[in-house]
Amino acid sequence: MKRRIMDIVQEKPWLGWTLFLGTVVVVFLIGLLAASIVERRDEADLVVQVEPIDEWEPRNEVWGENYPREYETYAATADTGFTSRHGGNSVIDHLERYPNLVILWAGYSFSHDYNQGRGHYHAVEDIRKTLRTRVSQPATCWTCKSTDVPRVMEERGVGEFYKASWEELGPEIVNNIGCQDCHDPKTMNLRITRPALIEAFERQGKRIEEASHQEMRSLVCAQCHVEYYFKGKEEKYLTFPWDNGYSAENMETYYDEIEHVDFVHALSKTPIIKAQHPDYEIYMTGVHASRGVSCADCHMPYRSEGGVKFTNHQIMSPLATISTSCQVCHRESEEQLRKDVYQRQDNIEELRERAEDALAKAHIEAKFAWDKGATGQEMEPVLTLIRHAQWRWDYVSASNAMGFHSPVEAARTLGASIEKAERARTKIVRVLARHGYTDEIPLPDISTKAKAQEYLGLDMEKFRAEKKEFMETVVPKWDKQAEVRQAKY
Amino acid sequence: MKRRIMDIVQEKPWLGWTLFLGTVVVVFLIGLLAASIVERRDEADLVVQVEPIDEWEPRNEVWGENYPREYETYAATADTGFTSRHGGNSVIDHLERYPNLVILWAGYSFSHDYNQGRGHYHAVEDIRKTLRTRVSQPATCWTCKSTDVPRVMEERGVGEFYKASWEELGPEIVNNIGCQDCHDPKTMNLRITRPALIEAFERQGKRIEEASHQEMRSLVCAQCHVEYYFKGKEEKYLTFPWDNGYSAENMETYYDEIEHVDFVHALSKTPIIKAQHPDYEIYMTGVHASRGVSCADCHMPYRSEGGVKFTNHQIMSPLATISTSCQVCHRESEEQLRKDVYQRQDNIEELRERAEDALAKAHIEAKFAWDKGATGQEMEPVLTLIRHAQWRWDYVSASNAMGFHSPVEAARTLGASIEKAERARTKIVRVLARHGYTDEIPLPDISTKAKAQEYLGLDMEKFRAEKKEFMETVVPKWDKQAEVRQAKY
Repeated sequence: MKRRIMDIVQEKPWLGWTLFLGTVVVVFLIGLLAASIVERRDEADLVVQVEPIDEWEPRNEVWGENYPREYETYAATADTGFTSRHGGNSVIDHLERYPNLVILWAGYSFSHDYNQGRGHYHAVEDIRKTLRTRVSQPATCWTCKSTDVPRVMEERGVGEFYKASWEELGPEIVNNIGCQDCHDPKTMNLRITRPALIEAFERQGKRIEEASHQEMRSLVCAQCHVEYYFKGKEEKYLTFPWDNGYSAENMETYYDEIEHVDFVHALSKTPIIKAQHPDYEIYMTGVHASRGVSCADCHMPYRSEGGVKFTNHQIMSPLATISTSCQVCHRESEEQLRKDVYQRQDNIEELRERAEDALAKAHIEAKFAWDKGATGQEMEPVLTLIRHAQWRWDYVSASNAMGFHSPVEAARTLGASIEKAERARTKIVRVLARHGYTDEIPLPDISTKAKAQEYLGLDMEKFRAEKKEFMETVVPKWDKQAEVRQAKY
Repeated sequence: MKRRIMDIVQEKPWLGWTLFLGTVVVVFLIGLLAASIVERRDEADLVVQVEPIDEWEPRNEVWGENYPREYETYAATADTGFTSRHGGNSVIDHLERYPNLVILWAGYSFSHDYNQGRGHYHAVEDIRKTLRTRVSQPATCWTCKSTDVPRVMEERGVGEFYKASWEELGPEIVNNIGCQDCHDPKTMNLRITRPALIEAFERQGKRIEEASHQEMRSLVCAQCHVEYYFKGKEEKYLTFPWDNGYSAENMETYYDEIEHVDFVHALSKTPIIKAQHPDYEIYMTGVHASRGVSCADCHMPYRSEGGVKFTNHQIMSPLATISTSCQVCHRESEEQLRKDVYQRQDNIEELRERAEDALAKAHIEAKFAWDKGATGQEMEPVLTLIRHAQWRWDYVSASNAMGFHSPVEAARTLGASIEKAERARTKIVRVLARHGYTDEIPLPDISTKAKAQEYLGLDMEKFRAEKKEFMETVVPKWDKQAEVRQAKY
């Protein structure tokens, strides 16, 4: 047979060439077929929008018609059933778990109510329900809660938005954190919709337009997951205190220079800086940021479904998605990686609790000193120490991830907090001694949230009744107005 | 031409087969040659010992005749010219850099003299020269300094070795830490020559013979780079306090249970536990240990010379060998990796200095309280806090690498140290108040090593003169005796 083919080819050379080229073409086509089978496309490239999305469209379900996979995973943030390090999968009541917090925030609404953050899907419901909000508060509080915010800012102007009351904008802000907050509706490119981040970059001499796509995968989160304050008594202009840098010390210097006070502590009279949730800032000091890993790399890992590659929008702890989050880089087992994270968090929590214990005692003891006749001059250095200790503690404590975003930086910051809080306590003992008191300072029983709130004389029943009335009378009106407005689209 | 070969093959098929098989053979031989060129052999397999090494041969240069590459790199530990994080490449005088240390060790010889450790090559010289050693000390101090130790232990028995005086064994202990300490002279296998490690394992219910080769690459280091104490007033039996585990808390429990005291503090009268250098223990809590990386992987990276692969015995900071140490696993640039290490160390150092500052003040203030008539009963809780604070500080501080072996654990431990030291200071203020003293406690100027030593009333001139005389009269005799003994080999 072999001989016969050779014979034929020798006789008709054009036949050999035909066979050869024919084979080349067939193999090429097989290659094309194979590539089309294994290809995973970015859904954004793939989809022809069912109907174009309006520039400031706030309704996530409307976006979801065009991007069903992203929307479905986003909607899954409704589920907060992730088993935490402490076991259990219900939403943690922080004040119940750490009653010292009630004391640390005496004089501020955080001492009334402070639950673990739930998914983006619950943002509006949760800010309405918490005992921390009242109709008289500034509209600035809405800034990070809803896709309606860019729309209303566009309509009213940014400054006017912040100046309004929380109540005034209640009917406007009804759609939960979602698509509009981070995406351009035409191109699906990431975009920044909140002015505070752009302004903070400008003051640092940077242009956010120059951020790379990978940087944007963190910066869209940094619109909200940051430290901020409301600048100006009237203006309540949302501002990030980043002018000196991202560390607790950098921001403390900023706040001290403008003598910023979030609240005066009800027991110790300390002018307190309340940290919000400086997630981005702590992350920036850690190894993941230094290696170029973005928020989305861990919290929004890529998934693949029916050959379509897309980003998982069920934003939550990466410990729920270790195989697609951590194991992209880390080759250890899921069990080992989870253990590693918990080990760091346990260590940070130990330091956090030391700082919390020292601070709670410092506040109570400072009140005791005031009661025994301590003067403002005597207490001034004590209050400076407490202010700086509590800010450092809160910088770590208020952030998500129990320090995991940058464990050594978190530990360093807490170590300084412990020192300052304990030094405040030493000074109080000396002040008291000068007023003739040399015994141990009696400490109240604050072993549960209820006991701690009772010690502060908080009328929790009243707060709960007020909130109940608000939910039953005001909120339904807001929803009705919103429904009417949205029907116009 | 093509046609002609085809014609020939068609006519003489055996010629085609010969060509084919010939090609196969030639390609095979080329493969062999290539493999032989790129092969890197383990020197231990390669060398035929010039002459067999005796079972307890202490002289590193004798081993070096058989293993020149290992010996040359070992001998390079003579060079301590590695530029540290602080810049400069001279040996750091810790007391000069951190004068608080003089105060922390008041009543103990570490307050006289404490320099950065130099390479293994200097072990005997350095222990002779330091102001910390005196002829009356136990021979146990020699245990980690020399390859002569296994030989003398074999001759005298382990218990008798420890019971001897430092002076008595002076003439025996002359060869620096080296080959014999970790290697079997016949097989070059790693072996444990120091009984304390084997005994500690036994008390933990483990058999060191079952350790893997990779574990042995850390355990040979753990013969000395660990926490230990001298058990028994007479016996001075070298013992590792590992029965409860490796953390500062685990070992503190051990020491508290046996009421171990290394020295009573000259100022505060605190019964102090002096940490040695728990390098292995801290490392065991860190991520490198958890990933199965051994001491040798970083500190003794593989090298290749003339096709021979061998282990670099110039043991020092891996920052001097980043390309062969860190970059085997980490893909970042040398500059980035160095920056990462320094960042962690800077953070730990900040906490370390906070702890040091608090402790130095606590000792001085405790003395002030004693001087004002404080009672033992009043001071007891103060001293317990200082004991536990200083142990935690020293656990991190006395270890190499400024916490890098396990940064979060180091930070956690230092955070607790800061809390306890500051709480001791608070108690002192109250004790003083009860004795009628309510002013600030005056602090001496301890801003330099000399000033701190003067504050303690240390007659450094006398110590230096004594050491000079020892070096000029005793040491030459030891060396002479050793020379005579070694000539007998």
